[in-house]
Amino acid sequence: MQRISAQPLTAGAFAPFGDVLAFDGAPDRLINGGSCRRYHDRARLDFGDGQVGISLFHAEPRTLPHTFDLVERHPSGSQAFVPMSLHPFLVIVAPDQGGIPGAPLAFLTGAGQAVNLHRGTWHGVLTPLHAPGYFAVIDRIGPGGNLEEFTYETPWQVVGTPV
Amino acid sequence: MQRISAQPLTAGAFAPFGDVLAFDGAPDRLINGGSCRRYHDRARLDFGDGQVGISLFHAEPRTLPHTFDLVERHPSGSQAFVPMSLHPFLVIVAPDQGGIPGAPLAFLTGAGQAVNLHRGTWHGVLTPLHAPGYFAVIDRIGPGGNLEEFTYETPWQVVGTPV
Repeated sequence: MQRISAQPLTAGAFAPFGDVLAFDGAPDRLINGGSCRRYHDRARLDFGDGQVGISLFHAEPRTLPHTFDLVERHPSGSQAFVPMSLHPFLVIVAPDQGGIPGAPLAFLTGAGQAVNLHRGTWHGVLTPLHAPGYFAVIDRIGPGGNLEEFTYETPWQVVGTPV
Repeated sequence: MQRISAQPLTAGAFAPFGDVLAFDGAPDRLINGGSCRRYHDRARLDFGDGQVGISLFHAEPRTLPHTFDLVERHPSGSQAFVPMSLHPFLVIVAPDQGGIPGAPLAFLTGAGQAVNLHRGTWHGVLTPLHAPGYFAVIDRIGPGGNLEEFTYETPWQVVGTPV
């Protein structure tokens, strides 16, 4: 088993894999008479020949250390995960190395952070660390499989302390 | 001032205005080896000649009773509000009556409920009842105004008890 440390989720570190949506810095617009700050159009969405849909995911909470050997990717579209609670969750991603995933990285979100995985990014399954594990998912709706899975020969273990 | 009572948000009562996204009933699919329940493609999205985007809204929390006189609508696209906390929020909508809004209705969400306003639905501004007031918004990105506002001659007051 190989061990990796969960790191805080930042836009810079996550850039090769997707977008971090967060309430950092100045909003792009003030709306509703100044009572609402709009951070505008923050995800690079790509649904190929499909359409966009909003689904809800109710995922089983996990604990750290978290052991996994399975990752997956969606070749036909991006996939955004919006937590419907303030709890942190774990985001596992891996670079592509000639069609298979390389060594994974693990990120720990903070309150008010969502992620959008770019089309084709290898990632672990949805991994909340607290009940109830409620998420909205914005991804491609359309025909075709749109799922590739890969199982590492040796499992990985993510260690870290949730905020 | 006219008074209206906030009612619990249900799909049936909200149907004339939009979709309720919620973890009610059986999921459409079990994914990730059974560890995640997917409620699939639950919003009637419509972005007209525009594209879809994900934005974040940081809205000022309000309290009940809540007085308002302004509603708005987006003639060119639907608009979904996903709370990024488990707190309830207030959803104010109104039927269209020949181009202007009729008497408004107020709904109070529960944990794990999001809404998608159908294209052209009159609605109040985003009204969280708890800090921090974090939401993800899935709406139309594109040219043109896409905003109509209407101010009622007599203000409305929403009464109710948040869950």
